[in-house]
Amino acid sequence: MNNRGVLTVVSGFSGVGKGTLINKLLGKYDNYALSVSATTRGMRPGEQEGKRYFFISVDEFEDKIHQNELLEYAKYVDNYYGTPRKYVEEMLKNGKDVLLEIEIQGARQVKKLMPEALTIFVMPPSALTLKERLVGRNTESSDVIRERLKRAVVESQGIEEYDCILVNDDLDTSVEKLNAIIQASHYQSFRNTSFINKIREDVNVFSEGE
Amino acid sequence: MNNRGVLTVVSGFSGVGKGTLINKLLGKYDNYALSVSATTRGMRPGEQEGKRYFFISVDEFEDKIHQNELLEYAKYVDNYYGTPRKYVEEMLKNGKDVLLEIEIQGARQVKKLMPEALTIFVMPPSALTLKERLVGRNTESSDVIRERLKRAVVESQGIEEYDCILVNDDLDTSVEKLNAIIQASHYQSFRNTSFINKIREDVNVFSEGE
Repeated sequence: MNNRGVLTVVSGFSGVGKGTLINKLLGKYDNYALSVSATTRGMRPGEQEGKRYFFISVDEFEDKIHQNELLEYAKYVDNYYGTPRKYVEEMLKNGKDVLLEIEIQGARQVKKLMPEALTIFVMPPSALTLKERLVGRNTESSDVIRERLKRAVVESQGIEEYDCILVNDDLDTSVEKLNAIIQASHYQSFRNTSFINKIREDVNVFSEGE
Repeated sequence: MNNRGVLTVVSGFSGVGKGTLINKLLGKYDNYALSVSATTRGMRPGEQEGKRYFFISVDEFEDKIHQNELLEYAKYVDNYYGTPRKYVEEMLKNGKDVLLEIEIQGARQVKKLMPEALTIFVMPPSALTLKERLVGRNTESSDVIRERLKRAVVESQGIEEYDCILVNDDLDTSVEKLNAIIQASHYQSFRNTSFINKIREDVNVFSEGE
């Protein structure tokens, strides 16, 4: 079978805990790698080049856009953020399952360039749990909370476009489920066409021989 | 999430061990059920009505064909064999993952009527292994073996149409892989549309309220 890694896009409601899930998964199994983003925003204290981000200039970033070197990108508050394709490709070739945490617009861009990407949407057990998590995180005003719920409405629009959903009820169980979904995807036929063709050719040869 | 079972179609080369795989899986986990076929052939000594087969008359069988009560059917050596839809439906509703061992023509019929069925093709680790298994099973003439290899060529034609492939190298590992593939399929978005819609509606209500 193919030992190329699977690019896995993880999206989900804000506050649903997808970042924690991904970190736990990375800490538990060493067949995973995190995609490193490129950004034009300044480096913050404690940040390291190439760990979570490659820090590049606006010119360099726009160059990457025009050279089709990004799997997806977006601009937030005057800064570009994007996923360099080359880095992802290298890790996939090394057999690593690459994790990419992005929003739906980014997920759509990735699917366009790499239709074989596995996309997973992380869900709360119920909308009430989500509300409680959004409220419970801090002491924001009800305006801010309503704003977040409105954002959740937007985030909920494209869930069906994702290959799988994952209900994050218990962190440890959810890490195992996430791992199970990604590992099972390696068996998809379209990821194993060379192996299938090899068997078919060999069976053909045997049936004609002797 | 949805607790409806997943109908899993298992196909594969003759001699690849798919029957053994299925029996092991059924013995190990109790969330599985085997689809029971309808047939017009006579009951053999030791067989029981409703265990592997429902034994019915040709008239009854043809009636089921015309009433669209079969997920798939075929005629071998003057006898009909088919999969009654109602029995499968009942078990799926009870949350059982239903296993159906059939050939590609049957798999195509099932996919047409139940596109949500998960289809798995069981492969040997190599064509050579397959040849050795076909040869090793008995002391048939090389004509018979060539006939079997020719059959394997035919069987290999539609592998890409299956959702997943499973390489049966070691029986115990393969049972676990089969289980993993089927269990992971429960997370597919299209199997969970009611849950997704419920969350979306509730989030909407919350965002408008207060």
